[in-house]
Amino acid sequence: VEARVRLGDVGEFGLIDRIAALVQATGKAVRPGVGQVTLGIGDDASLLEIPPDRTLVTTVDTLVEEVHFRRDWTGPEDLGWKSLAVNVSDIAAMAAEPLAAFLSLALPPETEVAWVESFIRGMAECAWEYGCAIAGGDTVRSRERVAITVTLLGTVERGRALLRSGARLGDAICVTGTLGDSAAGLALLQKGKGGPGPRGKRVKTLDTLIIAHLRPRPRLDAARALAASGQVTAMMDLSDGLASDLRHLTARSGVGARVWRNSLPVSDAVSAVAPLLGVDPTEWALHGGEDYELLFAAVPQSIELLRPMRVPITVVGTIVEEGVWLLEADGSEKALEPRGFAHFQTRD
Amino acid sequence: VEARVRLGDVGEFGLIDRIAALVQATGKAVRPGVGQVTLGIGDDASLLEIPPDRTLVTTVDTLVEEVHFRRDWTGPEDLGWKSLAVNVSDIAAMAAEPLAAFLSLALPPETEVAWVESFIRGMAECAWEYGCAIAGGDTVRSRERVAITVTLLGTVERGRALLRSGARLGDAICVTGTLGDSAAGLALLQKGKGGPGPRGKRVKTLDTLIIAHLRPRPRLDAARALAASGQVTAMMDLSDGLASDLRHLTARSGVGARVWRNSLPVSDAVSAVAPLLGVDPTEWALHGGEDYELLFAAVPQSIELLRPMRVPITVVGTIVEEGVWLLEADGSEKALEPRGFAHFQTRD
Repeated sequence: VEARVRLGDVGEFGLIDRIAALVQATGKAVRPGVGQVTLGIGDDASLLEIPPDRTLVTTVDTLVEEVHFRRDWTGPEDLGWKSLAVNVSDIAAMAAEPLAAFLSLALPPETEVAWVESFIRGMAECAWEYGCAIAGGDTVRSRERVAITVTLLGTVERGRALLRSGARLGDAICVTGTLGDSAAGLALLQKGKGGPGPRGKRVKTLDTLIIAHLRPRPRLDAARALAASGQVTAMMDLSDGLASDLRHLTARSGVGARVWRNSLPVSDAVSAVAPLLGVDPTEWALHGGEDYELLFAAVPQSIELLRPMRVPITVVGTIVEEGVWLLEADGSEKALEPRGFAHFQTRD
Repeated sequence: VEARVRLGDVGEFGLIDRIAALVQATGKAVRPGVGQVTLGIGDDASLLEIPPDRTLVTTVDTLVEEVHFRRDWTGPEDLGWKSLAVNVSDIAAMAAEPLAAFLSLALPPETEVAWVESFIRGMAECAWEYGCAIAGGDTVRSRERVAITVTLLGTVERGRALLRSGARLGDAICVTGTLGDSAAGLALLQKGKGGPGPRGKRVKTLDTLIIAHLRPRPRLDAARALAASGQVTAMMDLSDGLASDLRHLTARSGVGARVWRNSLPVSDAVSAVAPLLGVDPTEWALHGGEDYELLFAAVPQSIELLRPMRVPITVVGTIVEEGVWLLEADGSEKALEPRGFAHFQTRD
């Protein structure tokens, strides 16, 4: 039996060499015209060429062990995938294309090298899927917990970025896909269902929800199609939950919103699991977070034009003058307060 | 007496608003021609325009509490300065100009808001000094320790980046400034001398060294002048220690190096303090790390041309065919093994 190799055995530079070997080929994943990595891992900094007609788009996300993930619930490959995917979602939400990711990994010295290699493989898989290079980063020691920061650079044709700030009175408020799947998956993990073991052993419905939580699939294609339609006035991705994120979109646009509870798109899997856990599925849809679907405002007359897209689109509300309101099934209306994931709040 | 406001009291979005207010003006710090931030904090991602004749340069550095710094030794303003400065040093080492920094802060919920605001002020001071914007980032909760990841984007005229890989046989190996000051400062902090208190109370010599450790001043001007001279074949910054960093430069260039112990530039302050702590000052110079001086190779005949620069330049060795060697004062020669700071090694 081979002894388990830990980071302390190979050292910082040994680890960097292994990571560099695993990600080297991702330079070829970048789509033509988006930009190019001309110098990757191994110098003081990386070099990228940005096409002259494109704007650089930058986003950063940090995941901390025991705050954003637990290593007993998440295998390293899924975690590597998700660390990049949450950033791809931000780039997609700007209607931009991913170009190059930079990874900072803080790791306890007793971490196994094989764990890190699986993490990098999962991240590289996501990079291939969404067309970006892994082009640099930093590896440091932490005391007890893993912390992951990914900076993702992308580009968009100049003047074509879709911001949060363009929503106008009367616009339809839309979302892609279904909401609450990730929250349901997290609830199942909290109940001890699922984890990083072999997928075959899981019940299928539960599996779908757990995968939605562990391995989100950002809506890059849909974002591209929505931007190309010319009908979208504002867009962002759903990471904190509809109630919280909609507040940001309306604040940046200087408008308000009314959402209809009855219209929230909920998957069959969520509908099946919610009553077993004693939860109203639309509460997950409003406040769950981590769906990484797109939230956008669009000219109401244009919605039918957007229907032929391969991803389902649901109108969930309308832009109003001010406030963020929820229209209940019984016709009553109340303020829709954010209760999604927010850091530092005691309710975390 | 006003109650101390902690992050748990203001929440994630309250904190982001305060940070955004403190850094907003730094967009004006960027030098003309380097690039421009057209959308900063507040959307899914930031937007930057890169001039068509320039290459994008990206670096990432993470600092972890109790690994890279201690909050009882480092005040928040110095820590904010240093978090950006270590990245400016990498950008300078490529002969590039800083453009925009992205900050990820992982903070325990009991952290005081005033601490974070001082941190941001120190970082913004560094941004103004070196001409870069603070243009985005992420704030998340951590369990116990502060972790800081800064991604710094810069630009350089296309084809003008100075890499580690250009050193040639016979080149002179040079460094800017003096070496070992930061290591001496750290040793003093470890002995209980200094800390984040009022500077006036410190002994002046000790103060110089502690400041070198807590508030490094990257050599952006010198890097610019060295690149403009056209005489430099390879360059990097000194972060891990000369012995360790020189190994990276020679490996990337496919050459070796010989360093002369007698030639190592050591400051008067280091010479004064070293014997009191029972340390050979040239050991700090070789292995201390965190000097953030420039290490470069240059055509030997050109060294006199570089002398009129405002920063002192010292020739510390020469590029040879292979191996990294130290010529001792007695004329003997031995392999110069890296003993600088490296993560995950048990000697940390």
